[in-house]
Amino acid sequence: MHTDEAADSVVLLYTTWPDGAAAEAAARTLLDERLIACANIFPAGRSVFRWDGDVQAEAETVAFFKTSKARAGAARTRLTELHPYDEPCILALPAEPGLSAAGFVQWVASETR
Amino acid sequence: MHTDEAADSVVLLYTTWPDGAAAEAAARTLLDERLIACANIFPAGRSVFRWDGDVQAEAETVAFFKTSKARAGAARTRLTELHPYDEPCILALPAEPGLSAAGFVQWVASETR
Amino acid sequence: MHTDEAADSVVLLYTTWPDGAAAEAAARTLLDERLIACANIFPAGRSVFRWDGDVQAEAETVAFFKTSKARAGAARTRLTELHPYDEPCILALPAEPGLSAAGFVQWVASETR
Repeated sequence: MHTDEAADSVVLLYTTWPDGAAAEAAARTLLDERLIACANIFPAGRSVFRWDGDVQAEAETVAFFKTSKARAGAARTRLTELHPYDEPCILALPAEPGLSAAGFVQWVASETR
Repeated sequence: MHTDEAADSVVLLYTTWPDGAAAEAAARTLLDERLIACANIFPAGRSVFRWDGDVQAEAETVAFFKTSKARAGAARTRLTELHPYDEPCILALPAEPGLSAAGFVQWVASETR
Repeated sequence: MHTDEAADSVVLLYTTWPDGAAAEAAARTLLDERLIACANIFPAGRSVFRWDGDVQAEAETVAFFKTSKARAGAARTRLTELHPYDEPCILALPAEPGLSAAGFVQWVASETR
């Protein structure tokens, strides 16, 4: 199973949400628009941050959205539009194609064309 | 604690499984075969994806397998053999050695020789 | 919203802890010292590893600490001091600035100056 590794590579978008339902709604929209191949939504965790000078903690949900490198910019932009926060956490983690599962990398590319 | 950063560096393999038991069984095999140093298996979450044209969602478990850059290819190949899916998600995230804990990077290298 | 992408970029520090309380205590200290912008602490999962020659499994908590590239080294060092383990897992995953949310990247930079 050969893949043109330079063209096909996967980017994991690390995102946080108020809850799983918000993450899933966005994932369904991006799937409909072929901007991602899939999303993994974790059970709710806890986030710690500073707000108005005070350190605070609250429940938050992490989700990884998987897309191709070619579509990652458009997916980031669409997520920013859909997200309930003003400045959402959307961090792009590029996966190393040569050490990743070639079949999965190709599947992500085919799902985001 | 000096480490030859070019040689020793850690790769996180981001993987998904039908459940935690499947992830742990594979982790134990790869540990026995010295292909990984350890695995972190998350509590079950929810995955959203398209299958046969329809967007679907089901329970799925994410696990990170930690290995050295030198063994990451062999670990990916072995995981592909062991995994119950035909095209499993195995995405290699290289950690930046110079900003990671040197002792841990060395430990991963020693566990995968 | 323009960001000097070369200067501002985010590093995710992937860490593991005996429990969420230990992760949160460290996160609060690093926030007070402006070494991170925020932390996402996951619900407890399960880790599999070899110890004294035997493969073992025990409960463990993963947490991602988000900081700027400029502060990631100092955050790693401070985490190593605070962590209850002798050789804690602290793995630096650089986020690709050009594919990440620019507003969030700037916020992380402002929180860690």
